[in-house]
Order: sequence, then structure tokens, then C-alpha cells
Amino acid sequence: MYGVYIFVITMPTPSNRGLSMPSSPIRKLTPFAEQAKKNGIHIYHLNIGQPDIETPQEFWDAVKNINLKVLAYSPSSGFDDLRIEYAKYFSEKRGLPHINFEDILITTGASEALLFTMLSIFDAGDEIIGTEPLYANYVGYAKSAGVIMKAITTHFEDQFSLPSIDDFEKAISERTKAILICNPNNPTGYRYSDDELDRLKDIALKHNIFIISDEVYREFSYSDIPYKSMLSYPEIEQNVIMIDSMSKKYSACGARIGTVVTKNKDVLDTILKFAQQRLSPPTVEQIGSKALFNVNDEYFKIVNKEYILRRDTLVDGLNSIKGVKCHSPKGAFYCMVQLPIRDSDHFCQWILESFSYEGGTVMMAPGTGFYSTEGLGKNEVRMAYVLQVEELKKAVRCLEKGLEKYQLLFPEFAK
Amino acid sequence: MYGVYIFVITMPTPSNRGLSMPSSPIRKLTPFAEQAKKNGIHIYHLNIGQPDIETPQEFWDAVKNINLKVLAYSPSSGFDDLRIEYAKYFSEKRGLPHINFEDILITTGASEALLFTMLSIFDAGDEIIGTEPLYANYVGYAKSAGVIMKAITTHFEDQFSLPSIDDFEKAISERTKAILICNPNNPTGYRYSDDELDRLKDIALKHNIFIISDEVYREFSYSDIPYKSMLSYPEIEQNVIMIDSMSKKYSACGARIGTVVTKNKDVLDTILKFAQQRLSPPTVEQIGSKALFNVNDEYFKIVNKEYILRRDTLVDGLNSIKGVKCHSPKGAFYCMVQLPIRDSDHFCQWILESFSYEGGTVMMAPGTGFYSTEGLGKNEVRMAYVLQVEELKKAVRCLEKGLEKYQLLFPEFAK
Repeated sequence: MYGVYIFVITMPTPSNRGLSMPSSPIRKLTPFAEQAKKNGIHIYHLNIGQPDIETPQEFWDAVKNINLKVLAYSPSSGFDDLRIEYAKYFSEKRGLPHINFEDILITTGASEALLFTMLSIFDAGDEIIGTEPLYANYVGYAKSAGVIMKAITTHFEDQFSLPSIDDFEKAISERTKAILICNPNNPTGYRYSDDELDRLKDIALKHNIFIISDEVYREFSYSDIPYKSMLSYPEIEQNVIMIDSMSKKYSACGARIGTVVTKNKDVLDTILKFAQQRLSPPTVEQIGSKALFNVNDEYFKIVNKEYILRRDTLVDGLNSIKGVKCHSPKGAFYCMVQLPIRDSDHFCQWILESFSYEGGTVMMAPGTGFYSTEGLGKNEVRMAYVLQVEELKKAVRCLEKGLEKYQLLFPEFAK
Repeated sequence: MYGVYIFVITMPTPSNRGLSMPSSPIRKLTPFAEQAKKNGIHIYHLNIGQPDIETPQEFWDAVKNINLKVLAYSPSSGFDDLRIEYAKYFSEKRGLPHINFEDILITTGASEALLFTMLSIFDAGDEIIGTEPLYANYVGYAKSAGVIMKAITTHFEDQFSLPSIDDFEKAISERTKAILICNPNNPTGYRYSDDELDRLKDIALKHNIFIISDEVYREFSYSDIPYKSMLSYPEIEQNVIMIDSMSKKYSACGARIGTVVTKNKDVLDTILKFAQQRLSPPTVEQIGSKALFNVNDEYFKIVNKEYILRRDTLVDGLNSIKGVKCHSPKGAFYCMVQLPIRDSDHFCQWILESFSYEGGTVMMAPGTGFYSTEGLGKNEVRMAYVLQVEELKKAVRCLEKGLEKYQLLFPEFAK
């Protein structure tokens, strides 16, 4: 007898949680960028918030002067002297005199701070309310913790300002345990007004829920009105969990040193248990980070002057292109840009894969990755203005040429 | 009218997941140790696996020679050159020629490797089988991922050897997706025989489940029989997820550089998504870690000679105390010790809080923290022999005196 024998080799497979986890919208185009580079094409990286500003020398000096024999674990909550410096920064320089080192736990980046916060305040099936467009990794942390992210849509036409109290109240259910904001906002660059923050405070009080306030872009604030932290409201000091990081502030993204700050002792004690499981944040990078608090605030003035120049260069350039619209953001170093396209994923891949102008092309993050609501963001991209002015000008020109060609080639994808 | 008015200030509270998360059994006695130190008492730290061996100079030199301007993110899977060095170490030095850099993802310590692995292969409610006594943080990672840890009890009388196939098959259910082993074992110091590993291989094949093999103590192996990795079985290469770390190997615990190694591409791709969410492992510590692969294997011979001396000092000393029993472990630098007590938590706290001998006292990890089964570990403690020989001798003498006094003071807690 003849027959076909099929051998099935079974192998265990990843979880549904893992398989359904979205890839990073910021990093998923990387293979196409790498291919373009191999083809000798220069990439204007507008896709990722990796600043090109030099990390202050204080970091490098501290690291070079380390005189340890054994690279030991630090305490799980971070070195006390780093926590003390962090507390002094908040209490003496950022108008939060009530913050002391016991309110501070050092984490391996703001990413870990957010994940541990979610694990500590949510049970599986609980809900968190955010606003979209949304920093895509928030959805990932929520999914990791089994939490449902309900995102209220904010709109380009309103400069992505905070939704109304009504919108929040409609979204709040019995399972809602927190609202998450990012201020100044990634990806929109929007900086919330004091009125908007007051509204959030009222909602938190009325519904007795947490506010997770991601303030990692605090120093990148292009307005004469002083920056206000959610931690500055005494009425809700037990409700607020503030996230901070050295990454953007001091152009030290690779240090992976962040913090979670809260006056809610039960919450911090709970987060500490998750922190103990991972033993400690990196030792050398904590030592370097501590030295960064010696950097004078003058540094931020110089850096912000540069970012304002870049922002204006990018925004003016973009608005000069037919069919392109962009607001001038008041904080961070991102903007959501409207393009005359119907499928930002298709366009961002196409321009990397099939287009170049004067030897270069543009890498952007497709807008779709920043929305939970299906169908939104298809005519938007997120750009980070972390390149020097001359590079930004070239990037804008390259985008303009790319859009022209794209509209000819794919009239069905163009607006 | 008079009355008593009670104002209830509500505040949002942590999650049940967070509240039910156990504190680290290794670190929870820290406040008592700190108080003892304040009272001028020297602590013999047998509680924590923080080696006192010097971190090789290669690490410090690499860090001091860093010549970067911007401390940028690394790739989410770690620097390629570190992954290549790690792969060479496995393929050229550790008998795993089929491992290449694409099978390797750099994590922020083995802790993160374990958490991401669990998030990637388990859905909430799935089951993992371990053996107890168990490294306590495994339970924490499982709880973080919503996974049920079923621990099969292993016994002091059997030197904590691997349970029988029968015991495993009784524990396996439809929800079982993985078996987790630590080899050489923390906390028992047991090193699995090739026969025992063969049995695990058969179970993985028969039930088509994962083996998570934590091999961070690979180099601490006090036997003439070569160490065998679970990754050396071609039949189950799709089933095995191996965890490794620089921490213990090179006495670089504070670097927080670990890795997950697997030939299962779907699993590694899934883990990468979690890795992308946390952006990257620490940059400086990756650069230092890469240089550690230049350390000659002669280093491990010297280190192991020292650990064998320490082990023998500790184990012989302990067995000379009336009522104390300890096996001589074949790997790692831990042992589970039977003491003539009925409540290891009470004893470990008492000896820190209320006892000293010649100005010192002993910090140990209560055995209860290493068992999931209620009631086990009450007459056991875990000790790490990470102190120099003379210190170990003093610690043993101190423990002996402490036990004598404890038995007089608390006959109801003594055996």
C-alpha cells in the first residue's frame, strides 16, 4: 500500500496575551529603515523620541569615577542618596515642597514605573481611562496587567485638548480605577492648562479614582505659564501617582532610570513588592543619574531654546506643504501631523521602502498606532523633532517630494 | 443635639493582586537588621545571594572607557555585539553550538527575562509547575502574570532531588503550559543529574509543554560531571526557554543584565514585544557586560575553589551543631538547613532583634518563604555562603549560641 504520511510536529505556542500584544508602532518599521540604509539611503529619524542633545558631562564623570570592587545590587527602591536627590529636585526646584525621599521609588525607566503601578492598583478586568492619540506602550502595560484601556478620543481640530468632564463621566464605570494622563503629551505635544488639570482633580475626587500622571516631559515646556504637576493638589495627594524619568530630561534614555512618586503609602508599599521581585534598578546608571541632579537649571533653558527652534522649523515647514497641517505644540518634542493620505501605515512604509530624494528619506510613526479606536489616525503621523535644524529642513523637503510622488502613484490612498 | 460625627476620608486602594503579593522572604527582615546595625551589632549576611567576589576589572575598564556623547536607548533586544558575545559563550564555551545571536534577547536581569517569558507563554489562569522549596520570586512573577504556580514538594531527606515522573504527571492539567526548574538550584544547591534532566525532557515531549530552565548558577557547579543545559536536547529545542544572567557568573548583580535564550522563534518574537514596551536594557551596563565575556574560564576555577572552601566550612560547621542538619550542595551557593526550631520566621527575627554574640548576629532567610505549601519550611532556613571563611566560622558559632539561648527562652518553639 502506498500513502502519504504527514508528520505533525507539535510545539508549544505563545499565549493569546502575547500574540495579541501589538508591536511597537514606533519600532515596527525598523526593518524597512535598515534595508534603506543598506541601500545607502540616509534616514531622517522623525519616528522616535531619542534626542541628539548631549548627555551632561556630570553623568560620564560620575561613571568614570566609580571606585567599587563589587557591582552589587542596590536596594529594591533604589539608592537612598539618589532618592534624596530626586526628592530635593521636586521639593526645592519644582514647587512640590511636600515630596520627600520616602515618597520616591527608583525604577528601571518610566516604563517599569508604569507597569508596576498598573500591577499594583489594578486587578485583571479593571479599567483605565486614557486619551487618544495615546503613547502606544500604555496599551501594552495595561494589557500586561490584564487591564482594559478605554481611550477617549481627542481631536486635531481642538489641538488634542483634554476631553470634557461629560466625556470622562460617560467613560467611567464601576471597574474604573484610574485616569492616565501624559503632560506635556506624547504624542501630541499638548500641555494641559491649569483649568484642565483642575477638572481632572474634581473627577478624581468625585469618583475616588487614581490619576496616573506621566510627567517625564515636564522640562520641555514652551510657555510662560509655570508647569503644574498633578501632585500639587493637596486634596488628591492620595490619588495621584506621578511618573518621572531621567531619560528625556537629561538626554539619558539609555540609563533606564525612572521613578514613581506618590504620597499614598499603601500604593508605594505595594509597588515595592513588585520592585523587590526584580531585585534592583541598575547600579552604575543610578550612580551616573544621581550626578545629573547637579546640572544647573540653566541647562534646560538652553535645551528648550534649541527645541523651540526645531519645533518652529518643523511646524512652519510642514504647514507650507499643500494638504499638510500641524499645530505648534507647547511641550515635549512631538507633534501629530495631518497628511493628505488615507493610510498612514502604507505611506510610512512606502516612503521608507520605495522613495528617496537627494539620497534621503523620512521615517515617521504611523498615526494608527496611537489610537485604540479602529480607523483613527489613518491620515496622521507622529513626528519627533529631535534632529538639528538643517536636518529638519531637509526632512520636510523630502516629505514634500515624497507626498507629491505618492499622490501620483496611489491616488486611491491620497486625499 | 450632641453627636459624634465620623468623617470618612476615602482614598483609592491598591489591587488585590498587589495586596496579596508576598513580600520578599529574603528582604523582609531588613528593618530588623538595620535596627541591629544601629545598635552597633555586626550582621553576618547569610540571607542574600550577593557575592563578595570582586567584579572582574574588564567590566570597570569598559565602563571607564566609554566615549559616547549621547546615552541613547539600545535596541530593545539588546546591543547586537553583546548578543553575539553571549552566543559565542554558549556555542564555543558551553557546549551549545546551535545557539546563535538571533536566539538571544538581552533583558534587564534574569528577573525581567522570567517575567516576560511568563507574560509571553501564559494566559491568566494557566498553570506552571515548579518544585518547592522554590526561589520565592518565581511565585511573584507568576502572580504578576496571573499564572497559578503548582509546586511539587521536594524533600530534605532526598537532598531535594527532582520529583518522580508520577508526581509531575499528577500535577499536570489541561492548563499546564510549562515546568520551571532552576539548575543548579536556588535555594537548595541541588544540581540535577543527567537522568533527572532526561526525565524532564520526556515529560516536555509527551505533554508538549515548555521547560523554563533557569541556569544562572551554571558556573557554580562542584562536580566532575559536566554541566548539562536543557538546551542541549535537540528533541525539545522548541520547548526550552533558558534564562541566564551576568549577575552571579561575574559577580555583577548590580548590572541587571540577563538574557532569555530559545530556538522557539514565535516565543522570542512575542517576548520581543514586551521588550519593546520597556524600550531597552541599560546601555552602560550592557557595554560593561560585553567586556566580561573576555574573562578567561580560569576565573571560574578560582572562584569555585573559593566557594567549595566556603561551602565545606559552612556545612561542616552547621552539622557540628546539635540538632542542625545540612547536605553538601553540588552547585550554586545556597543551602537549605534544618534547625531544631518550629517557626523559622520567629527564630530569624528573634536572632536579629534580640540576640548577639561577641558583637554579632546572623541574618538568614526563613524557610517558609520558599514553600507554597502552608506549614512547610518552619524548621528550615536558607543560607547563602557568600562570606569569607573566617566570617562563616564566626557566623556558625554565633548561630550555635543563638540556638542554645532560643531553646531555653522558647521551649515551645524549639524541637
